[in-house]
Amino acid sequence: MVKNKIMIPTLKWNNGVVDMIDQTLLPEIYKVISVKTVKQMWDDIKRLAVRGAPAIGCSAAYGSLLGIWKDRSKSTISLYEKFVKDADYLATSRPTAVNLFWALERMKKTAAESLELDADAFKKILLKEADTIFVEDDRMCRAMGQHALKLIPKRKSEFGILTHCNAGGLATSGYGTALSVMYAAAEAGRNIHVYSDETRPLLQGSRLTAWELEQAKIPVTLICDNMASQVMKEGRINMIVVGADRIAANGDAANKIGTCGVAILAKYYGVPFYVAAPSSTFDLTLKDGSLIPIEERGGEEIKCGFGKWTAPRKVDFYNPAFDVTPAKLITGIITEKGIIENPTMAKVKKMIK
Amino acid sequence: MVKNKIMIPTLKWNNGVVDMIDQTLLPEIYKVISVKTVKQMWDDIKRLAVRGAPAIGCSAAYGSLLGIWKDRSKSTISLYEKFVKDADYLATSRPTAVNLFWALERMKKTAAESLELDADAFKKILLKEADTIFVEDDRMCRAMGQHALKLIPKRKSEFGILTHCNAGGLATSGYGTALSVMYAAAEAGRNIHVYSDETRPLLQGSRLTAWELEQAKIPVTLICDNMASQVMKEGRINMIVVGADRIAANGDAANKIGTCGVAILAKYYGVPFYVAAPSSTFDLTLKDGSLIPIEERGGEEIKCGFGKWTAPRKVDFYNPAFDVTPAKLITGIITEKGIIENPTMAKVKKMIK
Repeated sequence: MVKNKIMIPTLKWNNGVVDMIDQTLLPEIYKVISVKTVKQMWDDIKRLAVRGAPAIGCSAAYGSLLGIWKDRSKSTISLYEKFVKDADYLATSRPTAVNLFWALERMKKTAAESLELDADAFKKILLKEADTIFVEDDRMCRAMGQHALKLIPKRKSEFGILTHCNAGGLATSGYGTALSVMYAAAEAGRNIHVYSDETRPLLQGSRLTAWELEQAKIPVTLICDNMASQVMKEGRINMIVVGADRIAANGDAANKIGTCGVAILAKYYGVPFYVAAPSSTFDLTLKDGSLIPIEERGGEEIKCGFGKWTAPRKVDFYNPAFDVTPAKLITGIITEKGIIENPTMAKVKKMIK
Repeated sequence: MVKNKIMIPTLKWNNGVVDMIDQTLLPEIYKVISVKTVKQMWDDIKRLAVRGAPAIGCSAAYGSLLGIWKDRSKSTISLYEKFVKDADYLATSRPTAVNLFWALERMKKTAAESLELDADAFKKILLKEADTIFVEDDRMCRAMGQHALKLIPKRKSEFGILTHCNAGGLATSGYGTALSVMYAAAEAGRNIHVYSDETRPLLQGSRLTAWELEQAKIPVTLICDNMASQVMKEGRINMIVVGADRIAANGDAANKIGTCGVAILAKYYGVPFYVAAPSSTFDLTLKDGSLIPIEERGGEEIKCGFGKWTAPRKVDFYNPAFDVTPAKLITGIITEKGIIENPTMAKVKKMIK
């Protein structure tokens, strides 16, 4: 049996504060921070202390409660107004992952429907909604892993799976999206070997995915992003699975920068390319991926990413945090409801209502 | 007029020692080291203080002299024997770049043909041969830049050129292979803008190419390797030019890891992909690229590349230093003799005799 859980959940509501692993310090330092204010949650999402579309959604849901939780006001309407302001503020922390907006909208809807409650009951029903988002996330992740099992043959020789960035337990409430496929496969006794792109500039693949899989005792080999072509060429990779931050109605999928490049290589080498994401990652209001806003980040992540300047300090840079993989390069999208093979708008709409 | 020379040559024979820029310290520290022994040259090539196929060739040529230069023996035959031993030892420093072996063979041939000379004249003729290799390298680089000019249109809007790793002045005697194209274009007044892949794990693109182009006042934008797909998708790239460490008889070209991936992306996006390399980089004894030995390097370059551990310390890794781009993905090979368009064995043999 595989140890498929990291030591504590990625984040946890703890009586008025949110305890989260500070993911910027991994793998060298394992530290849990206590997030006490909405402003602190905004900063921690922005600086990627917590990251990964589903984990951002969960953090924002709990985070939206931090302002009102210790407010002693007995006026539900004044709590509601404060809550909406806080939720709208948290929505400005990052632009690409849709789960952030999805979770906050869900919280706001519950709040708007609960104005007849007294102040204490209002807070409790919002906490219950955040807990539900958290628990549902775990259930969706496990369902994705089970759906994907049929893609991984039982065999003696290793089945190589390449992933990019971290769509693991650390990117969700605890079980992962892309990595749910690895966890479920390992639990089912499949002989898998994971190749993890280090994922520049912030190295989520080496800092988080390699760490997380090592914890779970799943064989993992770390490579630089620019080695993905070589491992595919050598026949080491049987399948690619990545996560997503937002998926448009036609199946175009935004994910960590570099994902689209991996998909193009996969097409060239004839390796199946899968995206794993829960239905909360779909944004059916966007007809295609060109409408997904792409976050650009600062130059120090590239020029001074490891505590040392590794480029001329003033040199021009470009640092898009995500790219969009066109649906035509995607073999299938693994969701909690099933796998959308060769995604099209019709198939996406049929699966994700 | 563009300042197309870096401050001093990449390396220089200086009366019995070889002065070289320690490229591992750039861009933060510009330091010239004096290499005094054959062993030291072996170490400095191995640890990449000097790197780039043509620069390795020049360094090895001069380096092979260091042992005999201060030897007071009057016996030419004993100097010859020592010289051959030193040259053969230097040939073991790195396996992929053919210029290393090419330069050392050329030195050994001159030595073997000069046994009738007295000891002093023997040393002098070998120094002359090393100087010739050095000067010819510069001439070949400048010729490549001139041949490539026809590929770059005169126009008002920027012409975007993407490169990978450093095939610049620092990789040669001073003018570059891939970067000779940029230098010649800038000197001819073409409106170019270079995109430099940072080139993990050792960041030659950010540490060396960005630095070198900034010195020359050529506009350069630094990106991570996994952003190459995105800048091509956005239409910013009109042409790709890279160097090579060894080119087989059929045109398959070994170059820094990640190059083949860039070539596959270029094919997908319809961007012309060029390799720039002097004839000394061709190895006509190899019928195709599968026969080129690929150096594998240690894991710390990936896991602890910048003085900080960014991956679990014991995690498995794979670190091939080069990959081979198949000739069918190469639009043309720019040599000092002209451009080999859509390279095949027949065309390569015709151009490189």
